[in-house]
Amino acid sequence: MTQIKKIGLYTSGGDAPGMNAAIRAVVRTAKYYNIEVIGIRRGYEGMINGEFFPMDGKSVANIIQRGGTILKTARSEQFKTPEGRRLAYDQLMNHGIQGLVAIGGDGTFTGARIFGNEYDMPVVGLPGTIDNDLNGTDFTIGYDTAINTVIDAVDKIRDTAESHDRLFIVEVMGRDSGLIALRTGIASGAEAIIIPETNRDINALMDRLENGRKDKSSKIVMVAEGEDAGGAFEIGRQVKEKFPNYDTRVSILGHIQRGGKPSCMDRVLASRVGVAAVEALRDGHRNEMIGIVHNEISYTPFEHACKHHVEINANFLKIVEILSI
Amino acid sequence: MTQIKKIGLYTSGGDAPGMNAAIRAVVRTAKYYNIEVIGIRRGYEGMINGEFFPMDGKSVANIIQRGGTILKTARSEQFKTPEGRRLAYDQLMNHGIQGLVAIGGDGTFTGARIFGNEYDMPVVGLPGTIDNDLNGTDFTIGYDTAINTVIDAVDKIRDTAESHDRLFIVEVMGRDSGLIALRTGIASGAEAIIIPETNRDINALMDRLENGRKDKSSKIVMVAEGEDAGGAFEIGRQVKEKFPNYDTRVSILGHIQRGGKPSCMDRVLASRVGVAAVEALRDGHRNEMIGIVHNEISYTPFEHACKHHVEINANFLKIVEILSI
Amino acid sequence: MTQIKKIGLYTSGGDAPGMNAAIRAVVRTAKYYNIEVIGIRRGYEGMINGEFFPMDGKSVANIIQRGGTILKTARSEQFKTPEGRRLAYDQLMNHGIQGLVAIGGDGTFTGARIFGNEYDMPVVGLPGTIDNDLNGTDFTIGYDTAINTVIDAVDKIRDTAESHDRLFIVEVMGRDSGLIALRTGIASGAEAIIIPETNRDINALMDRLENGRKDKSSKIVMVAEGEDAGGAFEIGRQVKEKFPNYDTRVSILGHIQRGGKPSCMDRVLASRVGVAAVEALRDGHRNEMIGIVHNEISYTPFEHACKHHVEINANFLKIVEILSI
Amino acid sequence: MTQIKKIGLYTSGGDAPGMNAAIRAVVRTAKYYNIEVIGIRRGYEGMINGEFFPMDGKSVANIIQRGGTILKTARSEQFKTPEGRRLAYDQLMNHGIQGLVAIGGDGTFTGARIFGNEYDMPVVGLPGTIDNDLNGTDFTIGYDTAINTVIDAVDKIRDTAESHDRLFIVEVMGRDSGLIALRTGIASGAEAIIIPETNRDINALMDRLENGRKDKSSKIVMVAEGEDAGGAFEIGRQVKEKFPNYDTRVSILGHIQRGGKPSCMDRVLASRVGVAAVEALRDGHRNEMIGIVHNEISYTPFEHACKHHVEINANFLKIVEILSI
Repeated sequence: MTQIKKIGLYTSGGDAPGMNAAIRAVVRTAKYYNIEVIGIRRGYEGMINGEFFPMDGKSVANIIQRGGTILKTARSEQFKTPEGRRLAYDQLMNHGIQGLVAIGGDGTFTGARIFGNEYDMPVVGLPGTIDNDLNGTDFTIGYDTAINTVIDAVDKIRDTAESHDRLFIVEVMGRDSGLIALRTGIASGAEAIIIPETNRDINALMDRLENGRKDKSSKIVMVAEGEDAGGAFEIGRQVKEKFPNYDTRVSILGHIQRGGKPSCMDRVLASRVGVAAVEALRDGHRNEMIGIVHNEISYTPFEHACKHHVEINANFLKIVEILSI
Repeated sequence: MTQIKKIGLYTSGGDAPGMNAAIRAVVRTAKYYNIEVIGIRRGYEGMINGEFFPMDGKSVANIIQRGGTILKTARSEQFKTPEGRRLAYDQLMNHGIQGLVAIGGDGTFTGARIFGNEYDMPVVGLPGTIDNDLNGTDFTIGYDTAINTVIDAVDKIRDTAESHDRLFIVEVMGRDSGLIALRTGIASGAEAIIIPETNRDINALMDRLENGRKDKSSKIVMVAEGEDAGGAFEIGRQVKEKFPNYDTRVSILGHIQRGGKPSCMDRVLASRVGVAAVEALRDGHRNEMIGIVHNEISYTPFEHACKHHVEINANFLKIVEILSI
Repeated sequence: MTQIKKIGLYTSGGDAPGMNAAIRAVVRTAKYYNIEVIGIRRGYEGMINGEFFPMDGKSVANIIQRGGTILKTARSEQFKTPEGRRLAYDQLMNHGIQGLVAIGGDGTFTGARIFGNEYDMPVVGLPGTIDNDLNGTDFTIGYDTAINTVIDAVDKIRDTAESHDRLFIVEVMGRDSGLIALRTGIASGAEAIIIPETNRDINALMDRLENGRKDKSSKIVMVAEGEDAGGAFEIGRQVKEKFPNYDTRVSILGHIQRGGKPSCMDRVLASRVGVAAVEALRDGHRNEMIGIVHNEISYTPFEHACKHHVEINANFLKIVEILSI
Repeated sequence: MTQIKKIGLYTSGGDAPGMNAAIRAVVRTAKYYNIEVIGIRRGYEGMINGEFFPMDGKSVANIIQRGGTILKTARSEQFKTPEGRRLAYDQLMNHGIQGLVAIGGDGTFTGARIFGNEYDMPVVGLPGTIDNDLNGTDFTIGYDTAINTVIDAVDKIRDTAESHDRLFIVEVMGRDSGLIALRTGIASGAEAIIIPETNRDINALMDRLENGRKDKSSKIVMVAEGEDAGGAFEIGRQVKEKFPNYDTRVSILGHIQRGGKPSCMDRVLASRVGVAAVEALRDGHRNEMIGIVHNEISYTPFEHACKHHVEINANFLKIVEILSI
């Protein structure tokens, strides 16, 4: 096997806190193994357009604590076409790139998988998404930071809810899965959690709240929704209509969940998989996502990382029920 | 003058971080001067209903750092009627209360002023509102915390805006005045600020953004709105319609702005005016709000505290214009 | 098996963020299963002195987000004697307590184990310590919060270190193990980590720093030390003596690491094991610590939980070496 | 008067959060007025050594929220000599610099004053120091952030102090003045404050603590000390010796007070005086510090800004006494 001498690095899809820590780890590890790193800006879009630049140890100095991604990110329609991928491959060839590290989520790895099947280009992926919706890793980079951002916000909302005896419908991110809502619901002492996997019957929700502790003055209902906000507003509307005696408010936490300084665990996770990514390319891995399962580095083919829905731990829902009484 | 021996204390209107620090200061200072304090829950509503309880030094232990108000707050329609105020006065008489400390904003002081004119009950007020929209004090309790909460949130939004080259319309609280939007707009490096006092012409806004630095990848527009959110959505809708090439998002910060641990300055302000409130009642003050102007305790009749609109420092708008280029 | 109807609950040893979340979970779960909870203040000391009080759902309202422990904690010399334990047992009998939930670390469980062997009293333990030095759980309650507190502090120190081109020796807690130092060292981009398990040769340390990137202006050395601070001062003294050209400073983070709002993960962990603790007592468990291993509830005899030293993941040290180049 | 076309900008002395916001404001305002800005690294040391580089709007993008100073800072012995200042002046002349903006504190302005008297070089200063010990401005850039950092830390310490019924001696920065200790002492509910301006008699301190509320379980004593830590250790030693029944701990907050994201108020202050600095140089100001007094821009000759000691508001000490009962 020829030793890899030059790799490309990009972030793609929704940004997540800790992506910069992963970028730093990849660049520093590559340097350690005498591999050149070419940064690719704006994901697949930049790969097609040739937004390439060399990265050294200094270019990632003092970024471990920064939110966002210094490589920027974008969604690319063009890369979904064979022509787009051909252009991307030509750019990589022109720059002598022999392997790729992709940081992102579902869409990123789907693109990487197709590309890796079409062209002789090893690609390994790092799980960077706040949604924690990938198989093959206990946690994704950004999830821990996002859930801490959510509970900070809900702690604040609880302050004002308590002062006014209010019911708050709080909407958090999480696309098609309720993993953010579940843990943050438990951690912020929510009285109820509504996730895509569960029933959204308003009467059942209100029964649940009505039958809760009578002396609880404030109530928080955590709702999981995707990027297209609004579910919480609709729920709020129905609650107000059917239960006008509640002083009900809606709060959409929105994009604050994507930013901020990464948590310690996110930085450690990003650093560990970042080191492992470079070592994986050296060892001949390709078409795999590198995660951490049970505290050990784990390699999962892209199709498995994305294909299945991450299942909800049913115990979590029971815990909410028990603890909110 | 008969020495006051027992006072009532309540919070009213929207809650604000630092109200608990003010409550603590009033209770501890009263104890220092051998005055009993009766806590009144839920503002005027609780005054009418007799939600009274004695407070001692211990009942305010370890609350200086807590958001919200341990006395709870509410809005009272009944207190706006002569009958309601009569009931409230009777309750106060039954409990032997000789003076009141009211913590709140505009509505709180309007109620206090009318009540103080109708009945022989000295009332002094402490400015507790995140809006900073009172005359007679440089800052209101809660404003400093709220603006720090806003910039923390916008810093996070900036992270993701930078990563995606996006334009964000961020809506902050501030009722009829733009004081939260102004300082947080400067402090978060917003590219533009829209406040009630200024024109909301979308074309002018976009001209401004278009003519800004071409190499700026992210843009933040700060919009001031009241409790009824939505202004930012409408602005976002217009921007998306007229300028579809921008990747535009809307974020309503909402009620997180009301909660959280009070900042150092809010705690100091609350403590200082809390001490001064008790001393003012002892000295025969009534119908006045106690604030801090130019670092000195200041006494302002309720009608002056509320009557005039707080004026916008025009320099602030110019600063935004200069610094966002 | 007779169904348990009344249990005692206490925290002991060093406090840790998330203990309150665990207390809340135990109390609420007990209520769910119709079990009475008696809170015991100040750990074994309070058990001996009879500092008992009944707890209901309301007594744990709004504490999930609070640092410290509302049950207070203490170290007890008396409980180390047979006479002390006899007094404690008598108190428990007098109050009709049929089982105990102990929240704490090494010392807490050692006491519980001895007590549980001497008397017919089922005791289960919850791992509450910032040190993460227990077997039988992937993480202890408080560890995640503590490491986030550390990196927040070191991020601040990095700001000033960068501005002044300084070398900082930062001492973190961690008793006899370096688990706090390891993860926070990686997460704050430390140039070197000194833990009890590794050599403390100053010349080797300085070689390592000298041979690092020449263009790095600031350097952080993370040192693990126990409650008795001072190791970092001695290291700082030696560095200053041998390498006077470095602008060297020492910072002992100290007790801030024990406080603060618990992180999301600590709250979730505390909630899960708190629910499991009550269920374990109902199911006849005794003399076991309840932790989470690989995301599943796990039961570990007290002697195993405490006996062995938690081993250091050698990969972590290599990661620091690779990433600080 | 010839219009200024090129200015130099530097930070000097101890760094303070908000310096970057001030740098950004100076650079952007200069651009607005078509003035070139030359950044000078490492203060007077870099001025002597010619560490100059041109700054444009982009070079200050996204720094408003960063702690530290991107221009770095240093203390210069050489600049204290006429030869050093001559070298600095020659460098400025070689680069065509016609005016200087200095960001720093006491030492910075003393250097600027002497330099400005010796050479025909207009210098204006911006107050950048966490100590708030300058005349001519209500607050210095960095003070508000530092006091918030302190109370965040002391809130954490309070959590653990409460859990263990401990007495903590907490040392904060503040050089020769107690302004950080005073406000943070009030804001964190400290039971006593020891500042350079007051007596440090340990017996008096303990009397005060002993005579405080008997039911208070934790006690915080806030001690103001300069960069040379240690005062708190000595006080702690004496307390432990004379009052062994107290469980006493010492915590030196140290350099975390210098870093971190600047608060909203610090960013606004830095932005306002940064804009004013450029306008002042255009208007012919020199040898003046630009601050904000009573919410208006204020110009103070360097000798007045530094000469007098900032006086302690005696009311603050009384407030601590009243509120800690």
